[in-house]
Amino acid sequence: MFKEIFENVRQKSPLVHNITNYVTVNDCANMLLACGGSPIMADELEDAVEITAICGGLNINIGTLNQRTIPAMFAAGKRANELGHPVVLDPVGAGVSTLRTETALGLLKEVEFTVVRGNISEIKTLALGSGTTKGVDADVADKVTEENLTGALSFAKDFARRTGAVIAITGAIDIVTDGERTFCIRNGRPEMSAITGTGCQLSALTAAFATANPDQPLEAAAAAVCAMGLCGEIAYQRMTNLDGNSSYRNYIIDAMYRLTPAELERGASYEVR
Amino acid sequence: MFKEIFENVRQKSPLVHNITNYVTVNDCANMLLACGGSPIMADELEDAVEITAICGGLNINIGTLNQRTIPAMFAAGKRANELGHPVVLDPVGAGVSTLRTETALGLLKEVEFTVVRGNISEIKTLALGSGTTKGVDADVADKVTEENLTGALSFAKDFARRTGAVIAITGAIDIVTDGERTFCIRNGRPEMSAITGTGCQLSALTAAFATANPDQPLEAAAAAVCAMGLCGEIAYQRMTNLDGNSSYRNYIIDAMYRLTPAELERGASYEVR
Amino acid sequence: MFKEIFENVRQKSPLVHNITNYVTVNDCANMLLACGGSPIMADELEDAVEITAICGGLNINIGTLNQRTIPAMFAAGKRANELGHPVVLDPVGAGVSTLRTETALGLLKEVEFTVVRGNISEIKTLALGSGTTKGVDADVADKVTEENLTGALSFAKDFARRTGAVIAITGAIDIVTDGERTFCIRNGRPEMSAITGTGCQLSALTAAFATANPDQPLEAAAAAVCAMGLCGEIAYQRMTNLDGNSSYRNYIIDAMYRLTPAELERGASYEVR
Repeated sequence: MFKEIFENVRQKSPLVHNITNYVTVNDCANMLLACGGSPIMADELEDAVEITAICGGLNINIGTLNQRTIPAMFAAGKRANELGHPVVLDPVGAGVSTLRTETALGLLKEVEFTVVRGNISEIKTLALGSGTTKGVDADVADKVTEENLTGALSFAKDFARRTGAVIAITGAIDIVTDGERTFCIRNGRPEMSAITGTGCQLSALTAAFATANPDQPLEAAAAAVCAMGLCGEIAYQRMTNLDGNSSYRNYIIDAMYRLTPAELERGASYEVR
Repeated sequence: MFKEIFENVRQKSPLVHNITNYVTVNDCANMLLACGGSPIMADELEDAVEITAICGGLNINIGTLNQRTIPAMFAAGKRANELGHPVVLDPVGAGVSTLRTETALGLLKEVEFTVVRGNISEIKTLALGSGTTKGVDADVADKVTEENLTGALSFAKDFARRTGAVIAITGAIDIVTDGERTFCIRNGRPEMSAITGTGCQLSALTAAFATANPDQPLEAAAAAVCAMGLCGEIAYQRMTNLDGNSSYRNYIIDAMYRLTPAELERGASYEVR
Repeated sequence: MFKEIFENVRQKSPLVHNITNYVTVNDCANMLLACGGSPIMADELEDAVEITAICGGLNINIGTLNQRTIPAMFAAGKRANELGHPVVLDPVGAGVSTLRTETALGLLKEVEFTVVRGNISEIKTLALGSGTTKGVDADVADKVTEENLTGALSFAKDFARRTGAVIAITGAIDIVTDGERTFCIRNGRPEMSAITGTGCQLSALTAAFATANPDQPLEAAAAAVCAMGLCGEIAYQRMTNLDGNSSYRNYIIDAMYRLTPAELERGASYEVR
């Protein structure tokens, strides 16, 4: 199934509009190109709305949030909804500050998201209206483990049902659910968290996958999460004892550039619950 | 001839002011350093005008355009004109949105550009006042091929004469013309389009080449286009079957760092029409 | 001693808030992760103040300065002071423009900095209220050499005493002083200056080291300067005759990721005066 989903990405070359942070934006653009998509970035209100209209999908990422770009996020999100375009939300740092938490909650209220992808701390903040986020990485106390997996699954499914969005919680074990069916994904490497923006890249990737597979948002999001994790595994095999997080970043994007739909199908490690 | 032009860049180490997008700005800075130039970025009105004055050249790139930076582009452009500094325009996404198209057209009207570099869709938008740009990449229908080359040449020459700027249209075949003489350049690799910002990097490079060769804007722009394409070829030879667009990006900048003026002279693939 | 200092960074994983330029921000984030720290970036006034409070340290870098982020710098700096967090200033381009010079001087007046790190031209600008900075690189006439080292040391010590901050002047020879004791450091490679943002990365690193070693700001800053230079040396050994400044950038961050406290202790090249 993931084979067909990825083939659609490669064949349709979805044009994805990203309103995103300036820390990891270059990597998001190269990751979109690597998977076969095409990126465009515009964050000024009038520009963003118009550019959303010529794109196939929208990725909203609230890192380095500011008052100038917030209205662009709301307006582009609503425009994408009108046009029936898939919209992804990456609530970077929700729970860290009032501005980020309130913007994310406001977006969730006014925009219909196809997929919301974050770490467990960020998603908890959105679901509960408060969080324990430590910086932009998931709080240790929050981590999804084999022990608390059942509870995390039921939390994620509940939030998916309430929002109508596919919820993707990524970490050591990834959870992707639409409230009915849930993918538990075990691709990836812990070393990926030593690279800035692997989460941001995954959100951009998810937007491309959802755009190329408009009728299968759950499967598209799960395929994107598997693809990112699998590329993390492939890239890790390439690491020498001189390589660190900077080369690893390059190798992961390279791996996505080289990944075939058949390899994704074979390498995806998940169970459906 | 390109040997001397590149030697001037290496020897004079031109300081280039860039008002550019936040997606590819890091690569532009490293590309400028790789060619022997020196980058500075400032996009706040008062800062930009003052910094333009201490630089040798200016590169204006309208990606991730916003209301705060637009006045800085106009003011810095005019200041550079007063000082006789070369100014390059990269109309990223002209034709995609009203803001980008109108800003690019406004800049062309109020600032005297030494070189305008874009893909065929962007340049057509500027010439015709409308475009068919698909995102930030050239529209397929617009692509310059051997079949439509004569028409594209005459279009480019006409636009160069009307604007007084050297026009550089880059794609599978690159066209660089001042309206009288035209370089048709066949350096480069199609895989370069899978890297975000190779066009932006080329515009920054062109600004460095034009700054170090103030009396030869046409030759400087053509040399920069050849150098970028040649580095794309050299870097491609280095690619292993694990490398993708992210490593390719690094290798192209590396190749520029290593490129000698004599190698550029030998490797440049062009005809003058 | 540097061994223990670096061990503290690895063990405490300091969360560092960066208000920094968009040119080199991604490299700063990856460098912070490479050393064992954790980065967060926020530059909008209300967001920045709140995020400073949940972090352990603050790094203020004035590259690509604008009117929106200046108030965030002042407010976050004051908040960090109230909380007793280490604050680092990187006065990128002070002396180049009025906005940068005045912002840096204003910050020095209103915020108590733990460390100020810049090149000799930038630090001279701050000390003398005027400068000869050529772009964002140190002016040749300013360079610290064996010949003028004694004078530079006395200048740096004087400025450290006046400001109460540790002053780190980096170049061919690095000077790190609190006005009483001075580290003269000879780690590093001249080729590092062909990479954009090695200075910015060092400032971010210094913030992480100072945050993890709150009672030893002088030693923390000196250790960070040695670590950066040592990684430049280690990474240089890895360079092939195809590699240039872009791969070198990756290799330096990789080297920091791999560097052990014991290697830093052994490789640090300095004398205390």
